[in-house]
Amino acid sequence: MIFTDLIEKKKRGGELTEREIKFFVESVCSGSVPDYCISAFLMAVVLKGMTFNETLALTLCMRDSGEILRKGEIKGVCVDKHSTGGVSDSTTLIIVPVCAVLGLKFAKLSGRGLGYTGGTIDKLESFRGFNAQLSEGEFTRIVNETGGAISGHTAQTVPADKKLYALRDVTCTVDSIPLIASSVMSKKLASFADVIVLDVKYGSGTFMKTAESAEELAGIMVEIGKAAGRKVSAAVTSMNCPLGNSVGCNAEMRGVIDVLKGAENDLAALSKFLAVQILACAGWDKKEAEAACENAISSGAALNKLKEIVRAQGGDAAALDDPELLRYGKYKREIICDKGGFINKIDGEAIGRANVITGGGRRKKDDAIDHESAVLLHLRTGDETRRGSVLATVFSNDEGSLDDAVRMIQGAFYVSDVPPEKEILIHKLIV
Amino acid sequence: MIFTDLIEKKKRGGELTEREIKFFVESVCSGSVPDYCISAFLMAVVLKGMTFNETLALTLCMRDSGEILRKGEIKGVCVDKHSTGGVSDSTTLIIVPVCAVLGLKFAKLSGRGLGYTGGTIDKLESFRGFNAQLSEGEFTRIVNETGGAISGHTAQTVPADKKLYALRDVTCTVDSIPLIASSVMSKKLASFADVIVLDVKYGSGTFMKTAESAEELAGIMVEIGKAAGRKVSAAVTSMNCPLGNSVGCNAEMRGVIDVLKGAENDLAALSKFLAVQILACAGWDKKEAEAACENAISSGAALNKLKEIVRAQGGDAAALDDPELLRYGKYKREIICDKGGFINKIDGEAIGRANVITGGGRRKKDDAIDHESAVLLHLRTGDETRRGSVLATVFSNDEGSLDDAVRMIQGAFYVSDVPPEKEILIHKLIV
Repeated sequence: MIFTDLIEKKKRGGELTEREIKFFVESVCSGSVPDYCISAFLMAVVLKGMTFNETLALTLCMRDSGEILRKGEIKGVCVDKHSTGGVSDSTTLIIVPVCAVLGLKFAKLSGRGLGYTGGTIDKLESFRGFNAQLSEGEFTRIVNETGGAISGHTAQTVPADKKLYALRDVTCTVDSIPLIASSVMSKKLASFADVIVLDVKYGSGTFMKTAESAEELAGIMVEIGKAAGRKVSAAVTSMNCPLGNSVGCNAEMRGVIDVLKGAENDLAALSKFLAVQILACAGWDKKEAEAACENAISSGAALNKLKEIVRAQGGDAAALDDPELLRYGKYKREIICDKGGFINKIDGEAIGRANVITGGGRRKKDDAIDHESAVLLHLRTGDETRRGSVLATVFSNDEGSLDDAVRMIQGAFYVSDVPPEKEILIHKLIV
Repeated sequence: MIFTDLIEKKKRGGELTEREIKFFVESVCSGSVPDYCISAFLMAVVLKGMTFNETLALTLCMRDSGEILRKGEIKGVCVDKHSTGGVSDSTTLIIVPVCAVLGLKFAKLSGRGLGYTGGTIDKLESFRGFNAQLSEGEFTRIVNETGGAISGHTAQTVPADKKLYALRDVTCTVDSIPLIASSVMSKKLASFADVIVLDVKYGSGTFMKTAESAEELAGIMVEIGKAAGRKVSAAVTSMNCPLGNSVGCNAEMRGVIDVLKGAENDLAALSKFLAVQILACAGWDKKEAEAACENAISSGAALNKLKEIVRAQGGDAAALDDPELLRYGKYKREIICDKGGFINKIDGEAIGRANVITGGGRRKKDDAIDHESAVLLHLRTGDETRRGSVLATVFSNDEGSLDDAVRMIQGAFYVSDVPPEKEILIHKLIV
């Protein structure tokens, strides 16, 4: 087989066979084909698409390109969740303890933040001493003992995705439904979860610009998961506003604590919705799952479970009792509204970038981050605002960065004379 | 400006500005952008196209990427022709002497053959001693003295095309009308011809599979030439059969001599048609141009002119008086028809590849070639054939290569029970 034949076929809109897809993935992994051929192929895929069969074959070949994690000694129903990206999205930190309280096994592999997106592992490192690099044995032991553990990736899973993603990132070939679906699902399927619940975002700062395209992506990922024998569902959710009311590690951790103490807001609503879907996939009755989730939180059991997990992973959980220990940067500035009206949109990507400017996010993969950098949003999309109202507050330990951050945050608020159409957070559930 | 913004814009079908096109060409030439970005961009161009303004800007920026040839001391109307590729296409060797006889100046830069296509320079080297690497001074002197000279490229013209073509060739991004048009026309415009006549082929072994796409390409190239202030026209011609009756340097040179001695066949018809277009662009009345071309040949003046040019370039022109001096390879095989019917097509690419197998063409750029390798076609598309008829004869000095060549040539003949639709050689003239 010759790689250029694959490019030619895809360029003409043809459907690749399983053998051809396998050859593609092998070529990517072996380095036998130059990057300029791979990127030409990827652009052809972006513009000509892939059928479901091609996307499924690509996902499975990518999954098989590296190590596949085994369930090993973990007992019970293993569950997993994945979000396609978002700003101020800390749902994992709420869902893991809730599900663990309710008897599920949540062996969560998470990543660090890069660019304007935050990472679960970074947020957990707000607890001094937290160990995010568990050995396989520790991971299994903690999951079995507490019901949940959250660790960084260690195994060499899906090297094909690492190589492809690096190339897609620099060749404008990211926004393709088959390429996104295969990237996400190859990683999910390289793990052993029996249940996978996906949160597919659309809107500002996401790859899917419309609800329809997010629905299409969600539908394909659910079908791939089912074809691979997993229980899968996907929520399609809107991102016309950061999910929580703050951005930055300590600030978002405080938001999580609020929800685990009973606060009702978008972060709480989506976290509970996803937890219920996970339980439903695991066989629970939906009504009972809803009540159980509410109870796990209102009883304080979920907050206690999070403490238990943080401690099991070596972290100092004191801040879970006293959130004030999660400090913000020394210098602060307020972002003042310059005209009255209604907030039509808050651009999450811009808020995330402001947090990078102040030191709270990474420009490059190995940058250190400042957990105390924070952007607190005082108003949300749909709210009325006046000239002079405080829209947000930004905190940093780097005073010199604040001017740029303020400008960036100011530009993230879209204020107009008329209120926006009421947009629902959870657009659709695909099962 | 950032290169990925260009990729993104083209991917979405946007029209690049002149400044963006200039940035693209500069990035290609400077090597500041990795090939994998360029190839992704090229694939986006193949699939999303370019407007006329983009194609024109690309052509002019590419032209300006290197040295631009000056007319210098050459006196009179300078003319040029270009064919988009073909097999057994020796029209240049007929048109140059005909035009020179009629007072035009033909300062022709030609290339060598690669793969299944032949090269004018290679064919001229069938004359012992022929010098295809003239200095600028010699070139000018011979053109002024004889009316024509044919030399290999020397100047560093259009480096952007060299770089882009090498990448397009290995990433399946050749067959794009804007990319072909800008490649051809940037090179034509980097030279000084007042008149440019193009021969745009469609069919087997060409980039354009249909007459319509060839017409579109021809129309765009003519408009680009006009926009750059040249007199340009383009013939759109069919390639359902090699143009001449033979492939191989010595064999094709014999075909040229036949035409210059008055033979009437497709090669003669197309050569005269293109010569007439050149004269028309140079201001001649068409009827008068037709009569003058016929007369230049029938009087023997064109054949004498070719001798004069060959001698001026140091070649031994004896073979122009005695074509038998142009020998064929020692070993020969006949290709026998295995069923009766009508020849519906002869795949020129396959015939050209057979000539590569027997040593008459190049696999790589610097391969030596055997001028004596030859494939003689005894029947043409449209002819009736019987089981046992001799379709072709192949000659080679490499006996071991003949089996493969015979198989290849056999496969090039498409024989069916019904005669093909009569296809006209010259489909259209675009002025």
